[in-house]
Amino acid sequence: MSAVDIEAFVHDLARISGEAILPFFRSSIGVENKAEVGAFDPVTEADRAGEAAMRRMITATFPEHGIIGEEHGSENPDAEHVWVLDPIDGTRAFIAGIPVWGTLIGLSRKGMPAFGMMHQPFTRETFWGDCARARYEGPAGQRALRVRACETLAEATIMTTSPKMFRDGDKTRYDRIEGECRTYRYGADCYAYCMLAAGHVDLVVEAGLKPYDILALVPIIEGAGGIVTTWDGGPAGEGGRILAAGDRRVHDQAMAILNG
Amino acid sequence: MSAVDIEAFVHDLARISGEAILPFFRSSIGVENKAEVGAFDPVTEADRAGEAAMRRMITATFPEHGIIGEEHGSENPDAEHVWVLDPIDGTRAFIAGIPVWGTLIGLSRKGMPAFGMMHQPFTRETFWGDCARARYEGPAGQRALRVRACETLAEATIMTTSPKMFRDGDKTRYDRIEGECRTYRYGADCYAYCMLAAGHVDLVVEAGLKPYDILALVPIIEGAGGIVTTWDGGPAGEGGRILAAGDRRVHDQAMAILNG
Repeated sequence: MSAVDIEAFVHDLARISGEAILPFFRSSIGVENKAEVGAFDPVTEADRAGEAAMRRMITATFPEHGIIGEEHGSENPDAEHVWVLDPIDGTRAFIAGIPVWGTLIGLSRKGMPAFGMMHQPFTRETFWGDCARARYEGPAGQRALRVRACETLAEATIMTTSPKMFRDGDKTRYDRIEGECRTYRYGADCYAYCMLAAGHVDLVVEAGLKPYDILALVPIIEGAGGIVTTWDGGPAGEGGRILAAGDRRVHDQAMAILNG
Repeated sequence: MSAVDIEAFVHDLARISGEAILPFFRSSIGVENKAEVGAFDPVTEADRAGEAAMRRMITATFPEHGIIGEEHGSENPDAEHVWVLDPIDGTRAFIAGIPVWGTLIGLSRKGMPAFGMMHQPFTRETFWGDCARARYEGPAGQRALRVRACETLAEATIMTTSPKMFRDGDKTRYDRIEGECRTYRYGADCYAYCMLAAGHVDLVVEAGLKPYDILALVPIIEGAGGIVTTWDGGPAGEGGRILAAGDRRVHDQAMAILNG
């Protein structure tokens, strides 16, 4: 299983997932059924369709691999290679018709994130990495992803999906970091981490993430030269409270506040 | 000056503005100059370039019209026809590389919003309306915009750019409305209003808007069958505290909380 094979295979997974999901995005199907209790939910249906399509392709190609998905649970999660799938990261964006949700496809080897991709089928943008390098492909072509330098929090742009994701003392600590930063923006989900890898954002601070929310993003961030850990400095692939930075100096400063 | 002429002319304005702005989006120019005090700011440069391009075309075509723009101030603002321009609505999104900022082009006649367009050159999406009808054009083609029915706040999806835009008592009132809604999402700027017009979102509540943040959106929302007013029920085109709803019942319920 060479690196080249995996890269092409994950691009294929992203394509079939996008084809399964896109018909549900901004569809009016959910609206027509809104009055019925327990009615058709387009985001759930899209999530299931995307994940089922990817699972079929993975099982056919790599029957010995494990799979962990948001919608269809775990199969063989102790295998050497495990796929970690989130067909729609950013369900609030999806529901609202905002095209900044993404399909996350991660592959771990012996429990460590090894390859990851974020694909947005509407904007036709794809970000991928293998911890050593990371690349972007969009409507205008392909290029390497590289974080930018940022010496201090005072120069940093910070992103988080919602300030409501933090509980109790975590909220106070998040607010202290945001208050030190030059500017902030809410509501980005997986795009926040990809924009960090692309050198447009310096810091992403979140909490309550599941493995499938973050595992696929770790090889992209690290491949672009960034740092992503839990708030206590542990490996990020398991989820939880996550701190990602493009520059180690900003990661250190944020860690000091989170653990101060 | 027929409706057809204006529609084609505004599409041309959007195109030349997008061509002026897009080279600055996700550019690294700002990064290289980050250490210099008062250095080159890509969002300001892009804003100025987009507005200058639109002003040149308006002045050449309609020399008797007034123009109000975010970057280059007012010219002849008491004319019968006045253009109201915001080349980049959503500067935080622009800075962070998130493709949900938009170019807003509004035209008022005798002080009332008459025609408006939101254009996103990266996703190639355009929303426009004239208070009586509204349309969308995207990568997959063109269609009419129409709000969706929503009987109560309990069924509503609400959007706002940031909960930090509300001051003092306004924040309390906003939070009460958000608490009644089924779901919320932050960080959308002009996209929130366009998604309301497209029937994906039921309510947008904001504060502190300038005329150029909202005037262009009024003919789109109204053309799609929605309602947009200030929090006290006045005309929205002047900005301030804005309440937009797809369904009058939800607008009434939100008004009752805002003024309760």
